Amino acid sequence: MLPLRTQHALRRAATPSLRICSTCLRCNSSVSSPNPPKPKKPKRKIIFSGIQPTGVPHLGNYLGALRQWVKLQNELHKRHVLLYSIVDLHAITVKQDPKELAQWRKEMFASLMAVGLDPKRSIIFAQSDVSYHSELMWILSCYASIGYLGRMTQWKSKLALPDNASPFDPSPSNKAALKLGLFSYPVLQAADILLYQTTHVPVGEDQAQHLEFARELAIGFNHAIATNNNSNFRLHPPETILSPAKRVMSLTNPTKKMSKSDENPKSRILITDTKEVIQNKLKSALTDSVEGVSYDPEGRPGVSNLIDLMYHIDESVAASPEELAKDLEGLSMRALKEKVADVVDEGIRDVREKYEEVMAMPGSELRALAKKGEQQAGSYAGKTLGEVKRAVGLSTELW
Amino acid sequence: MLPLRTQHALRRAATPSLRICSTCLRCNSSVSSPNPPKPKKPKRKIIFSGIQPTGVPHLGNYLGALRQWVKLQNELHKRHVLLYSIVDLHAITVKQDPKELAQWRKEMFASLMAVGLDPKRSIIFAQSDVSYHSELMWILSCYASIGYLGRMTQWKSKLALPDNASPFDPSPSNKAALKLGLFSYPVLQAADILLYQTTHVPVGEDQAQHLEFARELAIGFNHAIATNNNSNFRLHPPETILSPAKRVMSLTNPTKKMSKSDENPKSRILITDTKEVIQNKLKSALTDSVEGVSYDPEGRPGVSNLIDLMYHIDESVAASPEELAKDLEGLSMRALKEKVADVVDEGIRDVREKYEEVMAMPGSELRALAKKGEQQAGSYAGKTLGEVKRAVGLSTELW
Repeated sequence: MLPLRTQHALRRAATPSLRICSTCLRCNSSVSSPNPPKPKKPKRKIIFSGIQPTGVPHLGNYLGALRQWVKLQNELHKRHVLLYSIVDLHAITVKQDPKELAQWRKEMFASLMAVGLDPKRSIIFAQSDVSYHSELMWILSCYASIGYLGRMTQWKSKLALPDNASPFDPSPSNKAALKLGLFSYPVLQAADILLYQTTHVPVGEDQAQHLEFARELAIGFNHAIATNNNSNFRLHPPETILSPAKRVMSLTNPTKKMSKSDENPKSRILITDTKEVIQNKLKSALTDSVEGVSYDPEGRPGVSNLIDLMYHIDESVAASPEELAKDLEGLSMRALKEKVADVVDEGIRDVREKYEEVMAMPGSELRALAKKGEQQAGSYAGKTLGEVKRAVGLSTELW
Repeated sequence: MLPLRTQHALRRAATPSLRICSTCLRCNSSVSSPNPPKPKKPKRKIIFSGIQPTGVPHLGNYLGALRQWVKLQNELHKRHVLLYSIVDLHAITVKQDPKELAQWRKEMFASLMAVGLDPKRSIIFAQSDVSYHSELMWILSCYASIGYLGRMTQWKSKLALPDNASPFDPSPSNKAALKLGLFSYPVLQAADILLYQTTHVPVGEDQAQHLEFARELAIGFNHAIATNNNSNFRLHPPETILSPAKRVMSLTNPTKKMSKSDENPKSRILITDTKEVIQNKLKSALTDSVEGVSYDPEGRPGVSNLIDLMYHIDESVAASPEELAKDLEGLSMRALKEKVADVVDEGIRDVREKYEEVMAMPGSELRALAKKGEQQAGSYAGKTLGEVKRAVGLSTELW
């Protein structure tokens, strides 16, 4: 065997038109080729995530999800695609007041822009505006096993049923309450994601089960259509991006997540709350009577939640919640709450101002922004749905 | 009290501008009014029905459903709307070969025109071409009780399970086979109908259960949105039109319905079968060795099925199947079968010829016809879905 360099020299001499050496991509370094080999581009990322239209988000939504959405938007190269959806079709799986829901959709839309999502960079849209979500949902439901869905836990927790409950054997009082939509919504969630050939989904830990379901549904679907030689199409099983922020707890019951559905509005801080409102809510936050400040989520959930809040609102203040607690250890509860109120107010001031700005826009302008998102999302989704239909035989291509 | 005639005379005298008497609509008969009272128009009927894309229909489809569709088309005043859909989204609730399904959609589309549906009069379209079906399906699924769906019988019969089977307790071999789509498809079927504010649905007896489900779903939905004072919209609970034609039975097993899914192609006559094929299939039809012809569906199902076929193909030949049997009583089995073959061939000759004509059309022309149906159906469906979305709060109207 001749040395590699000699081989290349011989090949170049034998084929004058050969400008790129397919063996090493090296020996053509001195050749001015019209088609130089391109360095392999890292694959384009497609990020999808959704939030229900629950009106103005609280700090739990903001620190747990929305702030990461903005971070991804600001840090990812513009080659990557970001899709953020107000998942209003999920909202109706539980009873809603129609007027309130319509208002909450608007408030959530304004909030997404208020936290820093930029409709010039991110695709912001309402799920129900893009018909392809429901269409893919139906098609996927023909591949989703009822048994698997019955083992999912979210419909049980929404109806306050034990984890081993069966859809056909809930408690008598809840029997009428279990609607098909609540039971089958993991399939809609899978459709939301798979519709965009999403590569990455930022989610909280509580959604990991649904992501796994979406992955398995994609794999099952791909397997089923593999015999169709009219189509090379495959659904992309997505990866998760787990949110680094920990769960934000209720101010009034710090062993429970901060939640829109808590009856006590003092349990949560909205991202549009004024300084005075923030101060008031923090004043009545449940802590304990232990002297001084320390970080101990198990033993002192209330105090630890305040420290977490402060730490996550502005992570530049300390290296960790534990460190932050040490810096504050001499403070009284009252002084701690005042301090947290200041930091929170400071941290969301821009969001609050931007929110007022967006909500003051004429309706036509807001609707135009929503329309733009709908069209952008629709153009990606339509492409996938067209391929899916072709793959399963729902097309006129052979006519 | 004055006599009625006097009252009217006095009113006319007192109000010279009064040209229409609101009391009796009679006394203005001599008045030349610019706005004569219009006779109350009977309500516009909206007819919807669907058929799965199983390729070329057999006589069971034709006599049981399609011929009635054509009759409705030809007899109803043009004020009424007729929508006939190839329900391909239902087809995928069971396993399909994608290539075959695509071909079957085309064959069914051509067949609908071959039997006499006129795309200038009836709206003929594929369900999957109109996204609103899936969209309404999702919304309605948030109002459909899982318990009620579990009691429906069709998913059980498709999986050959007993009527008391539970979705979570099917036989082990079928456990993986029960997909969400098969379980939830009565909701899609309800959406198909309600999407057009359908007043009348021609169905076979076996679909009566699903129609009742659609009615109840409409009523439940209307009840749920009644509190929304932004919307006066209501879904219309449809009525059924039961098909007068009785079920056509299999030629090879006359106690079972004639069906596309029977493995033996000799069990059914397609509406495109040639005379020779019809003769062959009838020759091997299962009858009995009793001498002569008589009508006795219980005791002589095979012979009775042949008489039914002949009678229903051309109802002018006798007053009833019983009468027809009397006319034929002296015939041998062989002679009866020849006679039936002649009548069937005669009865479907035009259909067969028209089918060949449609299938020979360029693909682009067929696709254009399908597109026209899609657009017509879409314009009705879009209106309803817009109202539904507004009614449940999925709209930007308040923005």
